[in-house]
Amino acid sequence: MIETPYLLFLGDAPDPLAAKVAQGIKDWRPENAIGQFRMDGCKADLRLPDMTLAQAKAAGAKTLVIGVANRGGVISQAWKKVLVTALEEGFDLASGLHNLLMDEPDLVAVAEACGRALHDVRVPEVDYPIANGVPRTGKRCLAVGTDCSVGKMYTALAMDREMQARGMKSTFRATGQTGILITGDGVPLDAVVADFMAGAVEWLTPDNDPDHWDLIEGQGSLFHVSYSGVTMALIHGGAPDALILSHEPTRTHMRGLPGYGLPTLEALRDLSLTLAQVANPACRVVGVSVNTAALDDDAALACLAEIEGRMGLPTVDPFRQGAGRLVDALASV
Amino acid sequence: MIETPYLLFLGDAPDPLAAKVAQGIKDWRPENAIGQFRMDGCKADLRLPDMTLAQAKAAGAKTLVIGVANRGGVISQAWKKVLVTALEEGFDLASGLHNLLMDEPDLVAVAEACGRALHDVRVPEVDYPIANGVPRTGKRCLAVGTDCSVGKMYTALAMDREMQARGMKSTFRATGQTGILITGDGVPLDAVVADFMAGAVEWLTPDNDPDHWDLIEGQGSLFHVSYSGVTMALIHGGAPDALILSHEPTRTHMRGLPGYGLPTLEALRDLSLTLAQVANPACRVVGVSVNTAALDDDAALACLAEIEGRMGLPTVDPFRQGAGRLVDALASV
Repeated sequence: MIETPYLLFLGDAPDPLAAKVAQGIKDWRPENAIGQFRMDGCKADLRLPDMTLAQAKAAGAKTLVIGVANRGGVISQAWKKVLVTALEEGFDLASGLHNLLMDEPDLVAVAEACGRALHDVRVPEVDYPIANGVPRTGKRCLAVGTDCSVGKMYTALAMDREMQARGMKSTFRATGQTGILITGDGVPLDAVVADFMAGAVEWLTPDNDPDHWDLIEGQGSLFHVSYSGVTMALIHGGAPDALILSHEPTRTHMRGLPGYGLPTLEALRDLSLTLAQVANPACRVVGVSVNTAALDDDAALACLAEIEGRMGLPTVDPFRQGAGRLVDALASV
Repeated sequence: MIETPYLLFLGDAPDPLAAKVAQGIKDWRPENAIGQFRMDGCKADLRLPDMTLAQAKAAGAKTLVIGVANRGGVISQAWKKVLVTALEEGFDLASGLHNLLMDEPDLVAVAEACGRALHDVRVPEVDYPIANGVPRTGKRCLAVGTDCSVGKMYTALAMDREMQARGMKSTFRATGQTGILITGDGVPLDAVVADFMAGAVEWLTPDNDPDHWDLIEGQGSLFHVSYSGVTMALIHGGAPDALILSHEPTRTHMRGLPGYGLPTLEALRDLSLTLAQVANPACRVVGVSVNTAALDDDAALACLAEIEGRMGLPTVDPFRQGAGRLVDALASV
């Protein structure tokens, strides 16, 4: 649906985490990421070639993807000049922001005049049902985090990649804008109306072969007061057979909530399992995935060993080490 | 905003619970409930006078309120004839259904031709913020249930009524269509977009006097897989100081989910408190409210005594006994 390859627009990202949409596309579909476009003050860098619109066009880019997320999802005026010029130079635009491209009259007018497309991947395109809680065939795995942005999506994508390499049956199920931009479909869960959240997750993970695994993209955290309702709907709508605990060991407070410390992995394990067993009494916690990007090799290995010893669960950084041990752990379910 | 008094439309309600919107209006604003309009096969009865549209008009009714909720919130074709006729006879219409009056072209056309208003109280009219988790002044109380439709709204309304009678500072905060139809304002939480649910609850319960209590209308249940995400957002957005556990002792399975048994009150207490203390470490469980409508007096009193002994918490049916002991219990917070 969205024409590839992309030029990834990083705007004036205030920190690298704000560019996680673009980072995810680059990591999981590098063939689609021709270059990055950064504005003055941009604090993110994907280590892709910095390109002007003209350079990217010459290199074959078809769509400018807004690969940066701001709190509240606003399309700033500072971005508008670039976006309008991109349309005029023949790019389509794709965005996962709450504030929609289609709600910006200037962008709509220019896109129409230039015959270009505006893709708002965050807009739900399906009338999702209310969840019915009926058990489904096939298996499902969900990563739950001590905080937002700790590597839940990476964990699911890495497990999917590993399972595909082993010839196992698996599908990555996208629930956010990055995942949808990577895979081309999914449910933009944080934009779904509250009553239909769990039903949307049931719809996304239907009956399947008994040996098929859905790797469901996690969202938010049960311990993050801004987004915990979304996480709850993923747990009850997804009815996972297996949970992975996700963690970032250098985080000092919950993302965006300076007054809130992180929970322990033990607290996350106990709370997540209690809630998941409401929908699927057979659910088990099978492993831990740790985002050690902020640690050097020695510190990362020490951190992983400490957690593995404490929790008694296979513990890996799927970005450093691959997801093989987490996939192995699914065999126990 | 909505003109009173009302004629309450019960349609073809499949059971009395389906008419809980109308029941709530009758119980808490009886002066606004002139009569009921029932169609063939209606299984609900509010013990109000059954009126034709003409009789209600003659008695002074200004608005026909759709006081019945169907699974999925559909406006059936069977209702349309009555609604169109009501507009033609000079009634406004008010509805809390997901399926909006304003999305029905025939109703919109007739309303326009007749100069009547269509009120969709479920439609959010505010751009709610993302929750920031910052502690607020004043106190908040939330009822959480073992299931949906167990008396959470009644509990909050009864506590508010008792506190007003005692000259205490309190406000009932509506989060659903019934509450909004009763009070005239509130947040239609189950229609809010997922990312903004907790922020909407923060917006609804702002800073207040230190001795003021918000009595927040509960929704769903942490143990109801269809709606648990909404309950989660109420707990983290409301950041309650006091929790009331709500229960209906004759329920044999979760409402609408035949495969799901009810949790124990102990499980509800432990899970709710764990989650609430993420947002407000001082939160306490202060009492139990039991909907004993299905029991006779002796059975009801025995049930309440058994729960009170087991849980060690003041336990009342606020509809039978008033909410005095629950209000007393707030003094311990």
